[in-house]
Amino acid sequence: MKKIITISREFGSGGHDIGMEVAKRLDIPFYDHEIVDKAVAESGFTKEFVEEHGEYSSLSSVLLGTSAPFDSYYYAEDPQDKIFKIQRRIITKFAQEGPCVIVGRCANYILEQADIDSFDVFIRANIEKRMANVSDRVDLKGDELVKFLQKRDHKRRVYYRFYTKRKWGDYHDYNMMLDSGVIGKENCINLIIKAIGE
Amino acid sequence: MKKIITISREFGSGGHDIGMEVAKRLDIPFYDHEIVDKAVAESGFTKEFVEEHGEYSSLSSVLLGTSAPFDSYYYAEDPQDKIFKIQRRIITKFAQEGPCVIVGRCANYILEQADIDSFDVFIRANIEKRMANVSDRVDLKGDELVKFLQKRDHKRRVYYRFYTKRKWGDYHDYNMMLDSGVIGKENCINLIIKAIGE
Repeated sequence: MKKIITISREFGSGGHDIGMEVAKRLDIPFYDHEIVDKAVAESGFTKEFVEEHGEYSSLSSVLLGTSAPFDSYYYAEDPQDKIFKIQRRIITKFAQEGPCVIVGRCANYILEQADIDSFDVFIRANIEKRMANVSDRVDLKGDELVKFLQKRDHKRRVYYRFYTKRKWGDYHDYNMMLDSGVIGKENCINLIIKAIGE
Repeated sequence: MKKIITISREFGSGGHDIGMEVAKRLDIPFYDHEIVDKAVAESGFTKEFVEEHGEYSSLSSVLLGTSAPFDSYYYAEDPQDKIFKIQRRIITKFAQEGPCVIVGRCANYILEQADIDSFDVFIRANIEKRMANVSDRVDLKGDELVKFLQKRDHKRRVYYRFYTKRKWGDYHDYNMMLDSGVIGKENCINLIIKAIGE
């Protein structure tokens, strides 16, 4: 019973690596940066721009985005909205092709709206574990690193709220939540595979 | 590595049964109604009263409870507060005695405050599954049953908020969340045991 698995995650919780390994062991495709690559090709924006605006809100996007009372005749489509729509199409297409693991980008919500069944996972960890996890790829320490992680989470939270009208991390939106810091990454991988009945 | 496991649950999600079976397989004590029985003996209130006020808020308790600006010289202690304090002592004592499974009653928060390490699980299920789960013990159907379940959840949510100042079900308060409706009770039992490394 292979499934479509979506993984949402706090920054630095190891959700990307856990999802990649789950896909590998189930022998199904894994989509994270692939979504960015395709969105870059379709949108014409740079990779860095899509990575940032395809998952993290910017204040201007929130203020000027789809819910703002501006007329599209006078205002060009907001780049964040454009990227969201492209990513939504890409994610839906990947899911229609069969079982896979999709990381981030409101995939759980996008598939629900498209009436495609998925098993939705949220990965968390406490701040100390996340600081340790990202220490080799983020050149910050101590309080600065804490602030960086909190800001990343905040931007993901606002992005999720903006496009789904829901609260990021709310248990109603997931079938499973795992604390990778306490449970361990290897155990998280096994638990997800076991949860879907493989 | 047996642990203290706390289980919070939506009404009708099967959390009680899951917790009981986890305790049985790990050969450790299981505490749910035992907490009520002990609180009845200590408080002098009836079993029905402790069951209701030991986990579900009433409006008067919230309005007249610990945070209200009334002087205890003039007002006797609120019954809900009295039951909470007794339950807190009982739960802490159970946990100090060794590994066990404790269901409900803000046990995750109470143990955190007492600096006792626990593995905290939240069990959820969608409304249809919960309606099916409680159909043999609640004499309501359709919309009336939906309202009943929503009201139970609401009272637990307010109770949790009142005594912890936190949001019931917020992922920060748990190490694992499982959707028993999708995952299945038997699988939930196995996943919890596996998550704690047994």
